[in-house]
Amino acid sequence: MKSYNIVSLIRKKREKEGLAPDEIRFLVQQYSRDVMPDYQMSAFLMACFLNGLNDEEAAALTREMLHSGTVMDLSSVPGVKVDKHSTGGVGDKTSLILAPIVAACGVPVPMISGRGLGHSGGTLDKLESIPGFNVNLDLDRYVEVLKKHGLVLIGQTEEIAPADKRMYALRDVTATVESIPLIAGSIMSKKLAEGIDALVLDVKFGSGAFMKTRDQALELARKLVSIGEEFGKRTIAYLTSMEQPLGQKVGNWFEVHESIECLNGGGPEDLLQVTHQLAGTMIYLGGNAGSVEEGIEKSRESVRNGTAMQKFRDIVTEQDGSTEYLDRPDDYPQARRQFDVNAASDGFITAMDAYAIGMAGVELGAGRKSKEDVVDPQSGIILEKKIGEDVRRGETIARCFTNKEEQTDMVRKMLQDAVSIGSSRVEVPALITDTVTKEGTTPWS
Amino acid sequence: MKSYNIVSLIRKKREKEGLAPDEIRFLVQQYSRDVMPDYQMSAFLMACFLNGLNDEEAAALTREMLHSGTVMDLSSVPGVKVDKHSTGGVGDKTSLILAPIVAACGVPVPMISGRGLGHSGGTLDKLESIPGFNVNLDLDRYVEVLKKHGLVLIGQTEEIAPADKRMYALRDVTATVESIPLIAGSIMSKKLAEGIDALVLDVKFGSGAFMKTRDQALELARKLVSIGEEFGKRTIAYLTSMEQPLGQKVGNWFEVHESIECLNGGGPEDLLQVTHQLAGTMIYLGGNAGSVEEGIEKSRESVRNGTAMQKFRDIVTEQDGSTEYLDRPDDYPQARRQFDVNAASDGFITAMDAYAIGMAGVELGAGRKSKEDVVDPQSGIILEKKIGEDVRRGETIARCFTNKEEQTDMVRKMLQDAVSIGSSRVEVPALITDTVTKEGTTPWS
Repeated sequence: MKSYNIVSLIRKKREKEGLAPDEIRFLVQQYSRDVMPDYQMSAFLMACFLNGLNDEEAAALTREMLHSGTVMDLSSVPGVKVDKHSTGGVGDKTSLILAPIVAACGVPVPMISGRGLGHSGGTLDKLESIPGFNVNLDLDRYVEVLKKHGLVLIGQTEEIAPADKRMYALRDVTATVESIPLIAGSIMSKKLAEGIDALVLDVKFGSGAFMKTRDQALELARKLVSIGEEFGKRTIAYLTSMEQPLGQKVGNWFEVHESIECLNGGGPEDLLQVTHQLAGTMIYLGGNAGSVEEGIEKSRESVRNGTAMQKFRDIVTEQDGSTEYLDRPDDYPQARRQFDVNAASDGFITAMDAYAIGMAGVELGAGRKSKEDVVDPQSGIILEKKIGEDVRRGETIARCFTNKEEQTDMVRKMLQDAVSIGSSRVEVPALITDTVTKEGTTPWS
Repeated sequence: MKSYNIVSLIRKKREKEGLAPDEIRFLVQQYSRDVMPDYQMSAFLMACFLNGLNDEEAAALTREMLHSGTVMDLSSVPGVKVDKHSTGGVGDKTSLILAPIVAACGVPVPMISGRGLGHSGGTLDKLESIPGFNVNLDLDRYVEVLKKHGLVLIGQTEEIAPADKRMYALRDVTATVESIPLIAGSIMSKKLAEGIDALVLDVKFGSGAFMKTRDQALELARKLVSIGEEFGKRTIAYLTSMEQPLGQKVGNWFEVHESIECLNGGGPEDLLQVTHQLAGTMIYLGGNAGSVEEGIEKSRESVRNGTAMQKFRDIVTEQDGSTEYLDRPDDYPQARRQFDVNAASDGFITAMDAYAIGMAGVELGAGRKSKEDVVDPQSGIILEKKIGEDVRRGETIARCFTNKEEQTDMVRKMLQDAVSIGSSRVEVPALITDTVTKEGTTPWS
């Protein structure tokens, strides 16, 4: 490999000059080999944060983080492998529903997910609320389970993109997390390592998302699609609103419960809309539908005919989970304490601060303040009202479940502050606002 | 002390928000105590580099670096103590000449200097070319010698601004050196630690200076003056040109030699102009002249009447140096090899790249490429021509002295490239261009 001077490369980025792919490769490799110390990488990352990375640089960074570890070869698994990634939100349990749907429709889904942190939940924590469910499969088992069921649901292993893992940990303690190209590189290096052929992205914006505005989300979506296509993977992103939580349930088991409702043909409309849109697009990219619309129809049909729910039952069983509560979800052990949050006045719900609701969930025990925290599957929130609905004074807005003895007053206050009640009805915010593909961006209205 | 979250403070600077003095204090103190690791400080420094520091922040940073170590109390030394600092250049030996001048005029000069690095020379290296001269006095001796002679010339000790020392070393390896507020804080924390009452600054611009343009130099000068005045020290800065080397001699003993010439009433005009301007201003700030002009007159008189040269002889003796070569400078042992660089054509000197001439000096042995290098006092360059002078083909432009066996061809080429010969005479660039005080900036023409 050609050799460069590390300080000169940091200076180059500091001066807003573009780095060549070889230069980015050099930095990531020197960092992986402990030749470039943390203090140089953190200065470089701050320069990237403040001066940005162009598409070529972001792709090069992704490539180097990707190749710092194992890149799965799924060529032994027949079919076009498709995964979905969400940038995270509150009440976002779409992965749990769409993964069995898409697999039931014949498109293999090799899904490697993360854990929740802060207001945002994580698929692994939700899966682990199912007794016995094992997300820690090694990469051989990952391929084996995928071959057998067309579906596998695991957590990130040490072999996947270790440079990203180190760089992310460094960004976390140096205030360089919220950079669109760095976020895009981190997401894509992990997704590309799964061995996928195509990817659907759910880029969320609003109070409960990492991107607070539609413009920021659009920028991230474009960067993600640009990187995916650069790697020859068909990539479609949707922008979806996280101005209020998705669905009615927040908290690990609660979200599995709502997912089972959806797979059994019920579930709230907003959650179903997003889930089927994403699933339909995956089925289309997987080659089992001629259009996204046809994919959506197949997705809905897999729920109606029970194959999706059966696929979920199969994968839970395969990964050592008990199906007891899948069949009788209401039998799941309840949290010791329950309390309601009621409306302080008559009127209409005009806004719900998804971030604050997520943080209220954390206080109840459903999430983590730091990576070391343990989540409680029985804790959570059921929202009885959402934006646009009318309420009467004293009517229940949310039901809270926890095993903690304190926090009641604080959480009640958090939720009361998070829900705005006004005197006139407001429009429900549009849920899916834009489609981003390599051809460009299509607003939905 | 109030406690803050380190990551939040880095984020604040990243978002271009001003930090309060307490917040900057917290960061520097946590860094000094090894609570804040290098990787967080380097990210913070890159954010400072790219987003700048306002005057309040720069003063707070200076204060914390200053108070990370010993701040000298010179109240036991009678008089207004005044020092001078130059931002560094090629052939800049003014400190060696003005320190004895100002002391001879009754104003105490407590001078703590640095070493040369790269193209730029350092006062300590020059002083050490005098056999026996000891720059490593401890701080007790520093006060004692200053009391006795009104002058002391030492190197930075471990006790002076250790936080600056650590932060500077970190900046050096993370491409965050060339930031005006960080440079200003670093300079001023060390100068203020000397125990001075007032300060004169020589801020150089041009090819041989760290600030390449007059605008950059002006910005730095204003920041330096702002910090000095914030600390209640009268501070006056001059902008001076470093488009060509100052004086005719470059290299450690060569610069002492030229300083002795000046102290004996000779020496080149450009060097004398800058030296007397700075010295006169120091005498004025020290209260021994009613105006800078009167100070300059006293400065010149101290050369004419021999008291300045005698002061130099006294301080050399006090600090264990031999005066043998002060009295007979031409007896100084010569470098083993000498070669000339001659004009390739008839014409006029139109430009001299001071940076390249400084680097040619480094190649001869007069300077350092890295901090660990040893300088050779006998190596150097005598410039026989300067900008505006006429030359004939084959005439000597520069004489080179070295103890190295090779390098001749390379250095000759460097110097020939560094000196431009044109067909028509150009104006000599203005040497002093601006005066900066707390009242504002006064251009000289």
